Amino acid sequence: MTLPTPLTGVVPPVCTPLTPDNEVDVGSLTRLVDHLVTAGVDALFVLGSSSEAAYLPDRHRRTVVDTVTGHVAGQLPVLAGAIDMTTLRVRDHVVAVTAAGADAVVTTAPFYTRTHPAEIATHFREVAAASPVPLFAYDLPVSVHTKLGADLLLDLAAEGVLAGVKDSSGDEGTFRRVLLGTRARADITDFSVLTGAELTVDSALAMGADGVVPGLGNVDPEGYVRLYRYCRSGDWARARAEQERLCGLFAMTAVGDPSRMGGSSSALGAFKAALHLRGVIDCPATAVPQVPLSSGEVERVGKYLAAAGLL
Amino acid sequence: MTLPTPLTGVVPPVCTPLTPDNEVDVGSLTRLVDHLVTAGVDALFVLGSSSEAAYLPDRHRRTVVDTVTGHVAGQLPVLAGAIDMTTLRVRDHVVAVTAAGADAVVTTAPFYTRTHPAEIATHFREVAAASPVPLFAYDLPVSVHTKLGADLLLDLAAEGVLAGVKDSSGDEGTFRRVLLGTRARADITDFSVLTGAELTVDSALAMGADGVVPGLGNVDPEGYVRLYRYCRSGDWARARAEQERLCGLFAMTAVGDPSRMGGSSSALGAFKAALHLRGVIDCPATAVPQVPLSSGEVERVGKYLAAAGLL
Amino acid sequence: MTLPTPLTGVVPPVCTPLTPDNEVDVGSLTRLVDHLVTAGVDALFVLGSSSEAAYLPDRHRRTVVDTVTGHVAGQLPVLAGAIDMTTLRVRDHVVAVTAAGADAVVTTAPFYTRTHPAEIATHFREVAAASPVPLFAYDLPVSVHTKLGADLLLDLAAEGVLAGVKDSSGDEGTFRRVLLGTRARADITDFSVLTGAELTVDSALAMGADGVVPGLGNVDPEGYVRLYRYCRSGDWARARAEQERLCGLFAMTAVGDPSRMGGSSSALGAFKAALHLRGVIDCPATAVPQVPLSSGEVERVGKYLAAAGLL
Amino acid sequence: MTLPTPLTGVVPPVCTPLTPDNEVDVGSLTRLVDHLVTAGVDALFVLGSSSEAAYLPDRHRRTVVDTVTGHVAGQLPVLAGAIDMTTLRVRDHVVAVTAAGADAVVTTAPFYTRTHPAEIATHFREVAAASPVPLFAYDLPVSVHTKLGADLLLDLAAEGVLAGVKDSSGDEGTFRRVLLGTRARADITDFSVLTGAELTVDSALAMGADGVVPGLGNVDPEGYVRLYRYCRSGDWARARAEQERLCGLFAMTAVGDPSRMGGSSSALGAFKAALHLRGVIDCPATAVPQVPLSSGEVERVGKYLAAAGLL
Repeated sequence: MTLPTPLTGVVPPVCTPLTPDNEVDVGSLTRLVDHLVTAGVDALFVLGSSSEAAYLPDRHRRTVVDTVTGHVAGQLPVLAGAIDMTTLRVRDHVVAVTAAGADAVVTTAPFYTRTHPAEIATHFREVAAASPVPLFAYDLPVSVHTKLGADLLLDLAAEGVLAGVKDSSGDEGTFRRVLLGTRARADITDFSVLTGAELTVDSALAMGADGVVPGLGNVDPEGYVRLYRYCRSGDWARARAEQERLCGLFAMTAVGDPSRMGGSSSALGAFKAALHLRGVIDCPATAVPQVPLSSGEVERVGKYLAAAGLL
Repeated sequence: MTLPTPLTGVVPPVCTPLTPDNEVDVGSLTRLVDHLVTAGVDALFVLGSSSEAAYLPDRHRRTVVDTVTGHVAGQLPVLAGAIDMTTLRVRDHVVAVTAAGADAVVTTAPFYTRTHPAEIATHFREVAAASPVPLFAYDLPVSVHTKLGADLLLDLAAEGVLAGVKDSSGDEGTFRRVLLGTRARADITDFSVLTGAELTVDSALAMGADGVVPGLGNVDPEGYVRLYRYCRSGDWARARAEQERLCGLFAMTAVGDPSRMGGSSSALGAFKAALHLRGVIDCPATAVPQVPLSSGEVERVGKYLAAAGLL
Repeated sequence: MTLPTPLTGVVPPVCTPLTPDNEVDVGSLTRLVDHLVTAGVDALFVLGSSSEAAYLPDRHRRTVVDTVTGHVAGQLPVLAGAIDMTTLRVRDHVVAVTAAGADAVVTTAPFYTRTHPAEIATHFREVAAASPVPLFAYDLPVSVHTKLGADLLLDLAAEGVLAGVKDSSGDEGTFRRVLLGTRARADITDFSVLTGAELTVDSALAMGADGVVPGLGNVDPEGYVRLYRYCRSGDWARARAEQERLCGLFAMTAVGDPSRMGGSSSALGAFKAALHLRGVIDCPATAVPQVPLSSGEVERVGKYLAAAGLL
Repeated sequence: MTLPTPLTGVVPPVCTPLTPDNEVDVGSLTRLVDHLVTAGVDALFVLGSSSEAAYLPDRHRRTVVDTVTGHVAGQLPVLAGAIDMTTLRVRDHVVAVTAAGADAVVTTAPFYTRTHPAEIATHFREVAAASPVPLFAYDLPVSVHTKLGADLLLDLAAEGVLAGVKDSSGDEGTFRRVLLGTRARADITDFSVLTGAELTVDSALAMGADGVVPGLGNVDPEGYVRLYRYCRSGDWARARAEQERLCGLFAMTAVGDPSRMGGSSSALGAFKAALHLRGVIDCPATAVPQVPLSSGEVERVGKYLAAAGLL
């Protein structure tokens, strides 16, 4: 299907349910997709960071995108991450996910290797040239250790290289510069600016953002859909209350003991434990080498769910 | 072939010659291998950082390891990088390179994702369990943004998970702790400690390192072989003079204008320009999105070669 | 005077006008204070980062705080930075600025030295114990390379150690956690939460922040006063328009050529050039070793002022 | 006294003994100086990082430099740190320590504020211009978050701005570039290159370094004096054995529990505990807000001393 321009609304980065031996759990994945679609989300983003894309071998990635595009069957757009170190590797993922029916691709700046703004621009240009569908930039300095500058994004938008950006940088000042630049520059049309900052969605939408890509939206998609609608209707008081409830729920991401595991194990472990407790997926396993939550930590996830009215 | 224990000597990380359209130049690659073997190096390391592994799609990686293992045909050991973000992806590369005949595999800590020492240990354990050949840890914080601790390395050595480490961290204090720990701990045998710090090889060998993995060894393998032999024979005066000559040559890695390109473009571009000027490879192209050196910059590479007696 | 609890409104970090030979220009400083007070700001913050506190010797710091407290004479509160590396040094500054009449002090986590959350807590406790006036934490990771955690801040608020925080971290998620925690915890009363993020003041106030400490408020205090009032009255449309105008003006901070100077030279140089162009201060000099703006760069500052209706 | 050119040998950064209430313990300080002088060190460095300069108020700094210059009375040179954020503040410290008789001053790049190589050069030029004695650069990126480049150091050496460098960066490649540049450039004479890397002193001296500034030299000055002499006489086998013994001793710096304290508390706490156990100083207190070692941790320091033959 053709992607709306701009892309708006709630676009959850879909978790990848796994079996205990780290195979993709296709049944759980389709149930998760139904859980999101039923809640009224506007599009799906597979193979992003919340999907554990960095942990999934190519075979798993193909299963995910095949399953999701097949299951939604054009009801709503599917964006797919093409996450890899540099241009030629990313291009191979673009070919794979678009062959499987992805409606847009999402990629970061080069990582692992030392890079430069000129090289980042070339990277996006070369990836876009190889893609039959629109390309979104994924701004994720915590992972790639480079921040995408506002001028770089705007220039690539004007060139037609980028159709949008998913900004998970947490740098709200630059995010706003991109929003204002998108509006101010006559050479930019239909550039979609999405925030990944799930604790300040009301702020981002108030500034003019088009949509949100919330990891926590796996757990409470109805919450983010309501939040989005309150913002769009200008009901800022209800929006703030809904956002604050979601902030409380988000605290589950810190449930894992930092002396025992990293932040990914804790946050993705909590999302999956919550989906398991809510009956959406069969198994809360995260991909190796992540550390599983303890039973006490899972219990605390349950308390967050209960406090948010989700159990 | 069985890897010597410990692995000693000069183990250059083999550059990957490319055609102008970024295909692997197999003819140049075999000439480069001959250039290194003839110089007397002790083993080869393919698909490391100097090989542009981060830039090569799987298809290119396969061509490289097939070409090199086929060409050396057991004359000397071939180590192969299995460079990817996390465990399951790395395991797929391990299967591929060992099927092609690699005698050992080399992998980093997880990257892109947030991690933790316990997860890094699990990662190496799981990769080793999937590998039919010895596993080396690749300590490269500039790329993966995590430093491997001395105790982590020593414990995994004692467990039999790691056969050695290639230390490109530049942290000589920790490097020495690993060397001293390897010698002091009765539960560690045959752990190979290799330095990637090509400017202080004499120091590393004087401390007890087993060998060196010098990117610059592509350009001047004879120099590193001489340096290694001087050190082994205790001729520290000649070793220092040879090392200082190589330090002068190494300055070529900064030839690229930093306002125009990143550090990888400059350093790998210089190595390839030098190999091209020396007649070893047909084309100095680096992989997209790296920025090519200008003709003036290539000229300066030539001057470094001339000053070092290599042209 | 007694500080309002909580402290609300616009609290500009007052620039320190200097003579060409880097003495404090007392006449210009009092004119700058008048410029701010006349505009309707709610309090003044001297000896912060925008005041070049890091560049001012103790003698200059004393002149600044004496001049400002003397000149405002209790019309509005004066907060003073006590910026130094560790506890004992900070305590000396606290003694100096409170002797000169400061109504509150503001200090960061320890810097230069390696630190730890337990040490940071001790630091704030010891500084507070030595201060006759309320203590604000200054969260400025770009300078001190440590981020103050939400729980640390909230616990120190509950203990009565901290009266507030000036958050210049740019981490809006944690900022919101502090705001929500302040409201949720029964053991916290009257903790002032101020944002230093001058591009997202409307967002911060919509979330419940008490006030703003905008460096750009030196240049356009009326703008920030209007912005604050629009937010307080719930006129979010006007607030957003005012904020966006200020975002445009803020772009002046990037006017300095990054190949020739650092970010402090550019941003503080632009603020001072603007104050000079607006006729508020006599000389736009920044403290050594900062690099002065070129005449072309000053001209561009003028264009930003004109575009914002300030010339 | 006039500083030797170049400055060579062992130059310990003198710890600052404190009383339990954090006053300078003058009696212990003079005993520590005697302990070092008797061991045969070549100069003393007061008010560096190991001296807790960052923790000492100006009053304490004056006591330290007065005490030490008075006590050594010209027997050997005294270098004094002038550690502060920027130029004007550093100049005040230079005036203070040289009035008290320091034979050279040591200062870092600007910190806390954002900086730039051009600003760093101006900083050193302005500090040198204000100093009646030679100026050494202190390269300490772990504290100031900027690495001094080889060309910057060499150019300032050639200009006569810098008399030397104390390199505590841990970047041995750049350290060697500075050594080679010092020798190669005809416009540089008598530039002293000192290493602060106490675990690789044999390597640094083998490369041509002039001397060493070892924090651990407080605890075992005889060891570093022997190590220096072995290196100078070309007895590399004995040098290596001595260095390895000192590496074992250095492990005491990690004795503090990282969940309870920062790295400074652990390392400086261990040095002071060792000096107390060896009977050199009266009290092992470190300056607030550092966390004291537990009695069990102090016991482990004792074991390190015993293992090194120092108890």
